[in-house]
Amino acid sequence: MTQPIAVGVDIGGTLVRVGLFGSDGHLLSQNETSIASIEPERGLRIIEELIQKTIESITSSSLLGIGIGCTGPLDIVRGRINNPYTLEGWSNVPIVETLMETFHVPVRLENDADAAALGEYWQGAGREAKRLYAVTVGTGVGTALIIDGQIYRGVDDSHPEGGHHLIDPAGPECYCGYHGCWESLISGTAISSTARTIMNQKQLTALGGPDQINARVIAEAARAGHPAAITIMQKAARDFSLGILNIISLFVPDVIVLSGGVMKSADLFLPTLEKTLKTPNPMVPFHRVKILPARLGYYAGLYGGAYMILSETL
Amino acid sequence: MTQPIAVGVDIGGTLVRVGLFGSDGHLLSQNETSIASIEPERGLRIIEELIQKTIESITSSSLLGIGIGCTGPLDIVRGRINNPYTLEGWSNVPIVETLMETFHVPVRLENDADAAALGEYWQGAGREAKRLYAVTVGTGVGTALIIDGQIYRGVDDSHPEGGHHLIDPAGPECYCGYHGCWESLISGTAISSTARTIMNQKQLTALGGPDQINARVIAEAARAGHPAAITIMQKAARDFSLGILNIISLFVPDVIVLSGGVMKSADLFLPTLEKTLKTPNPMVPFHRVKILPARLGYYAGLYGGAYMILSETL
Repeated sequence: MTQPIAVGVDIGGTLVRVGLFGSDGHLLSQNETSIASIEPERGLRIIEELIQKTIESITSSSLLGIGIGCTGPLDIVRGRINNPYTLEGWSNVPIVETLMETFHVPVRLENDADAAALGEYWQGAGREAKRLYAVTVGTGVGTALIIDGQIYRGVDDSHPEGGHHLIDPAGPECYCGYHGCWESLISGTAISSTARTIMNQKQLTALGGPDQINARVIAEAARAGHPAAITIMQKAARDFSLGILNIISLFVPDVIVLSGGVMKSADLFLPTLEKTLKTPNPMVPFHRVKILPARLGYYAGLYGGAYMILSETL
Repeated sequence: MTQPIAVGVDIGGTLVRVGLFGSDGHLLSQNETSIASIEPERGLRIIEELIQKTIESITSSSLLGIGIGCTGPLDIVRGRINNPYTLEGWSNVPIVETLMETFHVPVRLENDADAAALGEYWQGAGREAKRLYAVTVGTGVGTALIIDGQIYRGVDDSHPEGGHHLIDPAGPECYCGYHGCWESLISGTAISSTARTIMNQKQLTALGGPDQINARVIAEAARAGHPAAITIMQKAARDFSLGILNIISLFVPDVIVLSGGVMKSADLFLPTLEKTLKTPNPMVPFHRVKILPARLGYYAGLYGGAYMILSETL
């Protein structure tokens, strides 16, 4: 008997991952390769070959479809990647059409934050939460809202950008055009940038020099008692907490799932968050909102991709 | 032939309004009376009599049900008003059960902000918008999200409080427990309070004295060129605009509907809003979000109440 399977694809700025899933949600096989600095035509071929190789690893299977999570902006409606920002040269790339022609199955394309949130909804930390809000704090801050297993979309199927909601109008300028949005205050980029601004040359050298500074280095220094690093992380923890507070006031989700590189230092953020949420707001049931670390790590987007297919076909 | 009709009820802190609607959305008849400082048992009787009187004004009609919008907190699940804050003594009042027993028809109860937003969705400014976000700026700031004609609810059917999302952590303290939430910066209460703080005795006296100060008085003074009033309204317009910016980043709704007493001075807010939204954020289609004044005024909640019934039964 042939086994029904679905493929999840996760396309980031440097890596593409492909995962093969059984209809029960088991990851059966997984492969990845670099697509950093590769132009789209060759990139698409690499992705096709990676999918082919992954499918062939399982015998007697019947492919139901391919779901893709990709770093945006995307043209979801026409199934195109339109992201020359983190995928150099990838403007208007018809990935859905291309993969449909090659594999003769349905192909779905979604923003990577939405795909990862779908994965956490299906098999991760937010399993079947009626309202799941996902927050990824890494190089930037990405958000996604899943309601009853469906991606919430804005006008024109746009992807809302909770990471660019304003927290502090006195904050730093962001490439989004405003001052003090969440991303400008708590992203890995923001934490490194603050460190390079407020630390003196001697302090920076002690941490390996300005070029070696990143959120992980600052977090480690804070844990080791470095005063400036503690100040930086405390400020980031406060602004992180204010953003979570806003998400709760605005959405009151069942679950908030936290992921991304900066959240690997969650130990430095969560005590402040707990203190922030303790203030009694009589109108919103804060205590009923679960705040959980993501469970699927780098594979969340793959799970989400497979779920796009399986939720439609089974 | 009997005409199918639905009743909408709007219960505020001082007034109760009852409206009778045909299934085509026409308001056929309307009555109102005061329930200020009236205890719940007598209050319920007054509401029943008002409904009865309104129904009797139309002959040959068949009542499909009663939909209520009420100032919260409410226990939506059990159909109870639980608002001793603005309806003194109204704790745990079983309004749904009581009206069902009296009128033998389905009765629905919703938060007043949600009911008004439903009304604007059905027959007002946000007619059939896929995603409608309503913002009421009056004594406080209330918000509601309607997706495909359905009220968005949080955990435990809670009503999110967008009016208490934080805009400026350096802002004034609010009864919600935090500093610088939207309501604490732009509500009528906030505008009056700022005026009493920054204006000197002579300025206050010129405007009628501290007790006469309200948002309307300050708005009028600003229009007349009063420098302190202009400063206050400019600050409020800025904070109003930052909140709208956040709503767009987080929800990208098709329509934002503005209502409430303070929005009667929209002429003082909209130029700043327009300037704020002009900054190009490449990730969110700001220009696709319509920002419109509410169209149904004080009757929005009545329309919403009738829609709760008609959307279910027709």
